[in-house]
Amino acid sequence: MTTGVRRRMGVEERRQQLIGVALELFSHRSPDDVSIDEIAAAAGISRPLVYHYFPGKQSLYEAALRRAADELAARFREPREGPLGARLLRVMGRFFDFVDEHGPGFSALMRGGPAVGSSTTNAMIDEVRQAAYEQILAHLGVERPPARLQLVVRSWVSLAESTALIWLDGREIPRAELELQLVHDFAALSVVSAAYDEEMAGILIRILGDEPADGPFGELVGRLVALVPGEGKVSTVGKMPAQRLR
Amino acid sequence: MTTGVRRRMGVEERRQQLIGVALELFSHRSPDDVSIDEIAAAAGISRPLVYHYFPGKQSLYEAALRRAADELAARFREPREGPLGARLLRVMGRFFDFVDEHGPGFSALMRGGPAVGSSTTNAMIDEVRQAAYEQILAHLGVERPPARLQLVVRSWVSLAESTALIWLDGREIPRAELELQLVHDFAALSVVSAAYDEEMAGILIRILGDEPADGPFGELVGRLVALVPGEGKVSTVGKMPAQRLR
Repeated sequence: MTTGVRRRMGVEERRQQLIGVALELFSHRSPDDVSIDEIAAAAGISRPLVYHYFPGKQSLYEAALRRAADELAARFREPREGPLGARLLRVMGRFFDFVDEHGPGFSALMRGGPAVGSSTTNAMIDEVRQAAYEQILAHLGVERPPARLQLVVRSWVSLAESTALIWLDGREIPRAELELQLVHDFAALSVVSAAYDEEMAGILIRILGDEPADGPFGELVGRLVALVPGEGKVSTVGKMPAQRLR
Repeated sequence: MTTGVRRRMGVEERRQQLIGVALELFSHRSPDDVSIDEIAAAAGISRPLVYHYFPGKQSLYEAALRRAADELAARFREPREGPLGARLLRVMGRFFDFVDEHGPGFSALMRGGPAVGSSTTNAMIDEVRQAAYEQILAHLGVERPPARLQLVVRSWVSLAESTALIWLDGREIPRAELELQLVHDFAALSVVSAAYDEEMAGILIRILGDEPADGPFGELVGRLVALVPGEGKVSTVGKMPAQRLR
């Protein structure tokens, strides 16, 4: 049990150290490409000792993912102060920080694969999605979300995931632009839902009513208003009987 | 090799029959809950004979998924005639038909799990996503899509997936509403992207220019214009310097 140990650590301390080392390695390369030997070398201990703490790579991977999931869920927490657009923008900033720090591991996890697509890992992913969903609902101040609002929030969480994955694949668009865009996407998905449902329209009008003109939501609306009555045929639809939602 | 065979079939015919029977079973219950015995019974042959054609449940599952993937990819094909909004709405109708027909199997596949989350199945899912992406791009008539358009189309494909999964989980919102909403979401995501990027604005103005006022895009724009200048502070942003994109 002492083979190769540089200094004595307690069991829990050693486990936490191994989780940290493994998370670092799993963050920078696909977990399928990381061996127990590398983890042992990075931790400065022998391979058998790694197995003493974790029966196999999968259990160490799941422990690392547990830590990453808790960390990611925590980044969706945001004080309920100030305009919603600005809050969501800060949350997106922290979300992209996380994605940036754990890029290859995040991609591998979300895309599935031999080492990463287990029931346990899928359950952890769903748990983070649920935490993000509940945080956003809390910010909206809606206690009993109607089905359409649930759909908007859940689809937006999924949109944030897929946008982050696409960003990681080449990083062609600056992340700051994508963070802002996702806040706007939230507004856009809400507006689409509100355009056809009075309950959603009520919720949206209440939220937008608290937004300053120079916040991300206000700015978007200004740009949309500028863009929408373009040169095409659609510029004539202002005359359509769509006033009833006001 | 003749045990329990009710009538003689050729090898390829029998394989195709088994794939059809398995796909039917995998569509209505999670593949994890379907046994080889059930597949054998439904096909009217013995369990050993199933193994003669497919070495195990995973290989039969993958063959069934192959057929489903080809079928789904085909539903994204749509003649390049008429307004884009109407085309996308027809595609969404066929997509939801597919989701409706294969509900529990589609959910299990997209959510991952012991029997379904393999590298092979993930590759097939990505293949369908890619086919959908290429179809949409072809409809937009853009030969070399800029990074921001690629992002909009890929994220919309992902949004269609997640909306369908949420719909399957309770079917609280009528699917016709969701099909239309997804067409609108496509417009909304494009508009958000266009609000900050001149190249996207040019593409969007060209597409919207071909849309009739009574098509799904035209109708949405009418409803948005009615909704956007609401009672909140954001109604003042019409004065913002956002005119440069026109």
